[in-house]
Amino acid sequence: MGESFAGFKPLDESLRARPAGAFDRWLLSLLNTALGDAPLRLVLWDGTEHRAPARPIATLLVRDRKTLIGMLLDPDLNVGDAYASGRLEVEGDLVAVNEAVFRALSHGGYAMLPWWRLSRAGGHGLRASRHNIHHHYDIGNDFYRLWLDRRMVYTCAYFPTPTATLEEAQAAKMDYVCRKLDLQPGERVVEAGCGWGSLALHMARHFQVTVRAFNISREQVRYARQRAEEKGLQDRVEFVEDDYRNIDEPCDAFVSVGMLEHVGLRNYATLGAVIDRCLAPSRGRGLLHFIGRNRLRPLNAWTRKRIFPGAYPPTLRQVMEEILEPWSFSVLDVENLRLHYARTLRHWLHRFEGAVEEVTRMFDEPFVRAWRLYLAGSEAAFATGWLQLFQVTFARPDKDDHPWTRADLYRGVRR
Amino acid sequence: MGESFAGFKPLDESLRARPAGAFDRWLLSLLNTALGDAPLRLVLWDGTEHRAPARPIATLLVRDRKTLIGMLLDPDLNVGDAYASGRLEVEGDLVAVNEAVFRALSHGGYAMLPWWRLSRAGGHGLRASRHNIHHHYDIGNDFYRLWLDRRMVYTCAYFPTPTATLEEAQAAKMDYVCRKLDLQPGERVVEAGCGWGSLALHMARHFQVTVRAFNISREQVRYARQRAEEKGLQDRVEFVEDDYRNIDEPCDAFVSVGMLEHVGLRNYATLGAVIDRCLAPSRGRGLLHFIGRNRLRPLNAWTRKRIFPGAYPPTLRQVMEEILEPWSFSVLDVENLRLHYARTLRHWLHRFEGAVEEVTRMFDEPFVRAWRLYLAGSEAAFATGWLQLFQVTFARPDKDDHPWTRADLYRGVRR
Repeated sequence: MGESFAGFKPLDESLRARPAGAFDRWLLSLLNTALGDAPLRLVLWDGTEHRAPARPIATLLVRDRKTLIGMLLDPDLNVGDAYASGRLEVEGDLVAVNEAVFRALSHGGYAMLPWWRLSRAGGHGLRASRHNIHHHYDIGNDFYRLWLDRRMVYTCAYFPTPTATLEEAQAAKMDYVCRKLDLQPGERVVEAGCGWGSLALHMARHFQVTVRAFNISREQVRYARQRAEEKGLQDRVEFVEDDYRNIDEPCDAFVSVGMLEHVGLRNYATLGAVIDRCLAPSRGRGLLHFIGRNRLRPLNAWTRKRIFPGAYPPTLRQVMEEILEPWSFSVLDVENLRLHYARTLRHWLHRFEGAVEEVTRMFDEPFVRAWRLYLAGSEAAFATGWLQLFQVTFARPDKDDHPWTRADLYRGVRR
Repeated sequence: MGESFAGFKPLDESLRARPAGAFDRWLLSLLNTALGDAPLRLVLWDGTEHRAPARPIATLLVRDRKTLIGMLLDPDLNVGDAYASGRLEVEGDLVAVNEAVFRALSHGGYAMLPWWRLSRAGGHGLRASRHNIHHHYDIGNDFYRLWLDRRMVYTCAYFPTPTATLEEAQAAKMDYVCRKLDLQPGERVVEAGCGWGSLALHMARHFQVTVRAFNISREQVRYARQRAEEKGLQDRVEFVEDDYRNIDEPCDAFVSVGMLEHVGLRNYATLGAVIDRCLAPSRGRGLLHFIGRNRLRPLNAWTRKRIFPGAYPPTLRQVMEEILEPWSFSVLDVENLRLHYARTLRHWLHRFEGAVEEVTRMFDEPFVRAWRLYLAGSEAAFATGWLQLFQVTFARPDKDDHPWTRADLYRGVRR
């Protein structure tokens, strides 16, 4: 092991006694090939390298043969676990490493390995959905409070300027969504997947609408109800612990921010039908805010297994085909905010790193490393264009009183 | 015939001698049913009505049995011909009549009649495309000059305010397209389907780019070249009389305004491949501006036969699936400007009516009536949401220097 690894904590000193052989060097060469021209130095447990790039931005240390084999057989799943457990170590900026990997994969390298195996994204029945959502969102409000903004908004923010703070950007995002929907006082809004309730409360408070907001995460609903009471908004915002599939009430606007990722492709048609049965004729409109893709590809298997069970980022085509076109919804506006999500994630990662000691006390080191990888990998995915963030505004086909141009969206805050 | 038809010119007085019988009344009742609750009064040649709506906005006179039968058997095709020939007469506002029909069809009435038969939109080989485009665009520059704006822009305008003039709105549209593309001085632009060249000249003059603009309409290309020379822009704008399928040169931006409608669904994949082979890596971006639909439906057969051979308005899903996703182009922005097209068409129709005497001299009355119906029907289609106008901005997946927000688009004119 070279001196550049002085900072790594050896998992098991005995491993160093078994030097890499010809088989290991061959495996390493495959891994190097798969990563194409990514400027990453790959090093085995005894310091063995296959070929070092001219100007490496980081060094990846594979601590044992089992990890090396796993990274080759099913990198999509095993690289994440290897990092979380410390069997794969990274010296260098984790975001930059992920960006380099995504760029290499974008240039076709992924075709050489089963890195992104096409597989079904798991079950999304009522029970499975509840389990999936519980897995991620019920980790504990205390955990999320450590690194989200003070309003607990766990979706892409909107930075009016690149230097806006996270708090400003989350408030701006909520405002932006309301203005894209052209909310009018007294209107009825249905929100599907409301997180800790910030958007619902924002809409009621600043746009004088009434909101029914749905969520199947018990912890989040409890928290959201408490906030509504604290703010005296419980008469205008009702938080309902129920699945989006059970929504059946008239509304003027239907909004869903960060839920579509968890709906599962096979339920898109159902979601479209739910929107259609709720949305008022003629003036009804809606907004879907979701993580998406430029082309069909499942979410990384490790993220699905360890972080977001059942998650799937669709392409715009899939959203059009399955949710909007069957009901003749008219698309008014689509905006891609992926760079805003990269910036949001940078803020989250920075705050997360500042709270690492506390998170480690609440959980353990593999948890910290898994979440670090997830946040850094997500920032890199949005920064490189591996993932997109779409806001799609749509309306009933005969709605004709929408603002004449989009200029009003950018003329300062209305309220 | 009631006195409300005093203004109609009888085609053949002898027709009035044959009164409508039971069969005619039955056909009329079918037609009434198909139109649902449209507030239109339908009257046969001898004054026969089936049922009059309470507050009709217009009266439609069917002048003979053959026309009545044709309107029922293949309304999609025959209604337009009947109107153009004068065998179907309309007393009332033609745009309002079309709007009423589109609303009735939107509410399901069309399912009762073969009004919108699903059929192939004709050939789009190189030769067929040339024929199709010649049919419409080579009617004569003198004709279009009578009712287009002075720059001869024959696509949807962008009205910064509803009261902008057509001249202002066409200039604003060209500027808007350039700004959505974020054109920089010295960049290379390819334009596919350049009409009379206004946008190409605008880009070169106001955004200091060089443009290669393609068009298969000989008359338009000749006119555009002449304008380039008059403006001294021939060194920076080259008008090429060739098919978009033959475009093969590097560019920083690819733009197509109002061509996709004529490309034909089966050539979308080819168009995507053309864009991919031309567009610069990393910084390349493009804009497609086209008439579209909320859901799959062919263009009205009469419009395809008499006005726009081979035209087809796609849904966003089709554009994503066939043109953008196969090449991982990243959608940055989609805007629906259908109400701007309704307003554009209102301007065109008004100017057209003001030039009717001249158009009649150039052609004949059926031509005038056909074009009146086409313009009025198009205004109605965009006003009611039967047709959409989409501007789709996209980029190479790793382009990350696009403006941070869309606010700049609305901060006054840059130049």
